Amino acid sequence: MSLYTEIFEQPQVMTNLLSRQSQEVERIAAELRRRDIEYVFLAARGTSDNAGRYANYLWGAHNGLPLALATPSLFTYYNQPPLLKNALVVGVSQSGQSPDIVSVLAEGRRRGCATLAITNDAHSPLAAEADYVIDILAGEEKAVAATKTYTAQLMAIAMLSTALAQDPQRRAELERVPAWATQVLRLDSDIQRIAQRYRFVRQCVVLGRGFNYSTAFEFSLKLKELTYTLAEPYSSADFMHGPIAMLEQGFPVMAIAPDGAVFDALLEVLRKVRLDQSADLLVISDRPEALELAHSGVQLPEGMPEWITPLVSILPAQLFCMHLTITKGFNPDVPRTIRKVTETI
Amino acid sequence: MSLYTEIFEQPQVMTNLLSRQSQEVERIAAELRRRDIEYVFLAARGTSDNAGRYANYLWGAHNGLPLALATPSLFTYYNQPPLLKNALVVGVSQSGQSPDIVSVLAEGRRRGCATLAITNDAHSPLAAEADYVIDILAGEEKAVAATKTYTAQLMAIAMLSTALAQDPQRRAELERVPAWATQVLRLDSDIQRIAQRYRFVRQCVVLGRGFNYSTAFEFSLKLKELTYTLAEPYSSADFMHGPIAMLEQGFPVMAIAPDGAVFDALLEVLRKVRLDQSADLLVISDRPEALELAHSGVQLPEGMPEWITPLVSILPAQLFCMHLTITKGFNPDVPRTIRKVTETI
Repeated sequence: MSLYTEIFEQPQVMTNLLSRQSQEVERIAAELRRRDIEYVFLAARGTSDNAGRYANYLWGAHNGLPLALATPSLFTYYNQPPLLKNALVVGVSQSGQSPDIVSVLAEGRRRGCATLAITNDAHSPLAAEADYVIDILAGEEKAVAATKTYTAQLMAIAMLSTALAQDPQRRAELERVPAWATQVLRLDSDIQRIAQRYRFVRQCVVLGRGFNYSTAFEFSLKLKELTYTLAEPYSSADFMHGPIAMLEQGFPVMAIAPDGAVFDALLEVLRKVRLDQSADLLVISDRPEALELAHSGVQLPEGMPEWITPLVSILPAQLFCMHLTITKGFNPDVPRTIRKVTETI
Repeated sequence: MSLYTEIFEQPQVMTNLLSRQSQEVERIAAELRRRDIEYVFLAARGTSDNAGRYANYLWGAHNGLPLALATPSLFTYYNQPPLLKNALVVGVSQSGQSPDIVSVLAEGRRRGCATLAITNDAHSPLAAEADYVIDILAGEEKAVAATKTYTAQLMAIAMLSTALAQDPQRRAELERVPAWATQVLRLDSDIQRIAQRYRFVRQCVVLGRGFNYSTAFEFSLKLKELTYTLAEPYSSADFMHGPIAMLEQGFPVMAIAPDGAVFDALLEVLRKVRLDQSADLLVISDRPEALELAHSGVQLPEGMPEWITPLVSILPAQLFCMHLTITKGFNPDVPRTIRKVTETI
């Protein structure tokens, strides 16, 4: 099964990217530091958009860069793009094919902005429009649902962050990610067992916050693509502003809750949904308080710096979705309706 | 019932805002035109965040302003806010109370950026942090689910857009909105009948694109808050990049599809979900091709310019949610779990 193989390739893909692309990323960072960049304007769709959400937090927190997610239809159907000035315009796309994403980079280039493509195809139309290209070198991804290209995009985003900040300590932390990834993939059979319990789930919400807002979105997208479960992602703060009203006894809530700055706030929300609303909780965490609260817990490796956790915490979610897909009797490699390359304008 | 009253107050609230705040909005726009603003950085939660999505498209298309939605946790828990420079920092909040939104404006002010509050309380902490305040003058909103304050926020955003662009034609178009709003509210009893059909809906998706991406989010939030239906909003393009796989025979799909630049693209997606996936369609539109495709159709007034449609197309969605709430046996004024003012950090 391609999906299974590709999930397990991830530590190797990360190692490969770290060793083969570091020099190029350093070179790009050095050039970007010389340019007058006030914010990032990022275009992406689907899984790549979730990688963009990680960039939103990481480049904001560690590189001081505000980030705007592009609204591609303004560049295509409306033909009224905003005036990009002193922006770094970034396109993230596995295939580099989607015309709407390419058009955002083309407009950035016309406006004299620096343009960067993060893609698995250095010969794609997206790469052709970019001043700088980070090829994520993930190899062909055969399964329709993206896994290894997602974590490779996160790694590329993280490598660029440490290179821009010239931060050797964080760079050293990044080198440890493949080992943590390998460690968490050893939970495969535990996760397979956990997945049984969710055989008849039709709907759920997925909570994450801060750096792992991205993980909540990507976990939820895999649930939809592979298991056809209506899974809606939320920041735990946005969830309190209305959607929490949906919860009723036994409603399934998934949460990504590694240790870090937002942990206490997220734990408070989890306590509320578990104890006040009687929700059914699945938690991915390294903290006992969160795991003990859950009906199903997945233990993350201890000691990971929070900013790195999205590269590792998505792996058990991918495994969970794959096993749940099989349990529900669907084909993990070829979801109904969708194809690998989606071209939207 | 407060919700019912407040939905029907909307044309009057809009008229009031147009007449009483135009001068102040013109004054603010004149000052902002003199400042060096390269992009907008906007903080909001819940319904106000959906108003922010409208600003994302409108200020992008008509005022050339790229817009970044803030990630408040970087300002609060992480204490690592991005470096705001040459930004217009905007906070949108009915109550003006949520500490995380206030902290984004405070940081903008510290950085020397122009700061703007759009709020229903000109004496709120949010207003106190802002150089400029647009008081939406909606009067007290008693129902927990926001309706009149949402459309008043949209109106404030639209008024600022026409004032910044000094566009008298669009300004004249805005003056017509209260009449269109009144016209669509006359569909109340039709919508009440339509809502019966959805008594047992537990989950659905809501599609919109471009200007009405905001409407899809707000429709979906009202469904969650009031009817406890798991409703997930999508741009029709993002929907094609994975989530469409969820659809199965009879899955309820709601769509906001007024005439305009993105209509043909959205219609194509609606044809696909209706004809290929056998989804069950509710459509809010002024175009017969879209209405004929639907199981349930709500006819919008004809002749509205697309950029204005979000101020009108949300009204039948609010009515639909209210009637569905009653049909399902819930209390429209006081949803379970949530309160009017949510303070998150």
